[in-house]
Amino acid sequence: MNRLKSLSVPAGSTVAFQGELGAFSQRAAHQILGAAIQPVPCASFDEVFEKVSGGKACFAVIPIENSLSGSIHQNFDLLTRHSLEAIAETFVRIEHHLIARAPVKLREISQIYSHPVALAQCQKFLRRVKRAEHVSFYDTAGSVKFIRDQGLRHAAAIASADAARIYRMKIICRRIEDSSENYTRFLALARRRRFSQPGSKTTIVFALKNEPGALFKALSVFALRNIDLTKIESRPIHGKPWEYLFYLDIRSGQNSPECANALRNLREMTLYFRLIGSYPTL
Amino acid sequence: MNRLKSLSVPAGSTVAFQGELGAFSQRAAHQILGAAIQPVPCASFDEVFEKVSGGKACFAVIPIENSLSGSIHQNFDLLTRHSLEAIAETFVRIEHHLIARAPVKLREISQIYSHPVALAQCQKFLRRVKRAEHVSFYDTAGSVKFIRDQGLRHAAAIASADAARIYRMKIICRRIEDSSENYTRFLALARRRRFSQPGSKTTIVFALKNEPGALFKALSVFALRNIDLTKIESRPIHGKPWEYLFYLDIRSGQNSPECANALRNLREMTLYFRLIGSYPTL
Repeated sequence: MNRLKSLSVPAGSTVAFQGELGAFSQRAAHQILGAAIQPVPCASFDEVFEKVSGGKACFAVIPIENSLSGSIHQNFDLLTRHSLEAIAETFVRIEHHLIARAPVKLREISQIYSHPVALAQCQKFLRRVKRAEHVSFYDTAGSVKFIRDQGLRHAAAIASADAARIYRMKIICRRIEDSSENYTRFLALARRRRFSQPGSKTTIVFALKNEPGALFKALSVFALRNIDLTKIESRPIHGKPWEYLFYLDIRSGQNSPECANALRNLREMTLYFRLIGSYPTL
Repeated sequence: MNRLKSLSVPAGSTVAFQGELGAFSQRAAHQILGAAIQPVPCASFDEVFEKVSGGKACFAVIPIENSLSGSIHQNFDLLTRHSLEAIAETFVRIEHHLIARAPVKLREISQIYSHPVALAQCQKFLRRVKRAEHVSFYDTAGSVKFIRDQGLRHAAAIASADAARIYRMKIICRRIEDSSENYTRFLALARRRRFSQPGSKTTIVFALKNEPGALFKALSVFALRNIDLTKIESRPIHGKPWEYLFYLDIRSGQNSPECANALRNLREMTLYFRLIGSYPTL
């Protein structure tokens, strides 16, 4: 994809993300919003959304999908619960490294800390370190910080090179992920109509009547205009078992006439509709 | 829905499921396969699939979707990785109870154990038990067994009434789930062509060319025949970032002419196609 330069935002703009300094979300935040932002680490995705909704941070950057493990559903649900606007997307190549306080032999490592998804993405490597216990942690970079703060000598963490650098820890083994086709897609969010950017991608969420052909008719508004669908996600509607909210990503900006017409057409047949954002890829 | 009687399988048929005795999956296994089965508790979903694929159990029963938390993606991925056949589905109403060794006051409880999804589904109740730490466990029923085996006096677990009964523990608070519209859908699986049942529901998985309108055309084979789509799920294809496998549930049996025609029509446009099963709802 063509990567544009990052958005122009005031230096020191606060950006909330889940995890500690050095998390992959922070890397995504710099790709989208530049080097001069002020990172605001948060313990949970709920906290990230609340920080921006409540005006305590200007932006949020959240992972929405990984090319191996799939959608991060909690963030789809939070997009609907809050009324933030998607203002840009970016892709980060995920490279996992084994990180420790000082050079250590693999057979001397008794515990390996990381986020459960990172542990799952390094299965082949972990099978080689048979004696080590795997410990689930809430964040990859956070597990590096934990090992440093606790002074653990026989523990290692799986995280990014950024995390190793920030916490001044050693990379013991590089590129330990099972698959090199490991990318995460991130969205930057802001309060509505503050930082809207013209862009070529649009994310919407809608609910349909529960009747045969409903989804087919909804998709027709895009297919009949040759608008490419890049992603469909369905999430349960609470209180209505086996009915769904559909999230669609389309490769068209809301300012283009065919996109505007398609969305107008779609609204005629939805019970609920919201434009989450129309944004550039950075 | 009309609940039929359970399938006729030989008494003592082994049924693998994730979790300990008393798990919701065991309840689903009895609904589908009757009272006389031999339950085979497994530590992970991988183990459940391997037990049946390897001939060490006759059947598997797996949760596929919850009406509040959505799809259990690991099981969609395992359906594709293994070649088992879906032979029946059932729905279980999820009721969570707080369970302890002996009657205890809420303020005396310092730890509450359960599966993370069960903890998430009892948030309102848990906010009332402020001082208790929440401990994630791999299984609801397993957390009851753990508290019993460890003899923990100031701990409680969130699990089913079945689990309380099986481990002879006390229900301290009943029905503590946030939402009463809490159901889980389960599939029973067997090796292919062993226990196929005629049914009115069909699950398929397929991949499409990455081109505009591909999903719309795929759904047309059902919409043009008035076949109702009850569920669509997309999962990443490893090694092909941002391409997807689509899982569809349709309300039609593969023996009906319109379903057979629709599937034949669909195969003309898929890069990959597999019928996971056509089965009754029990």
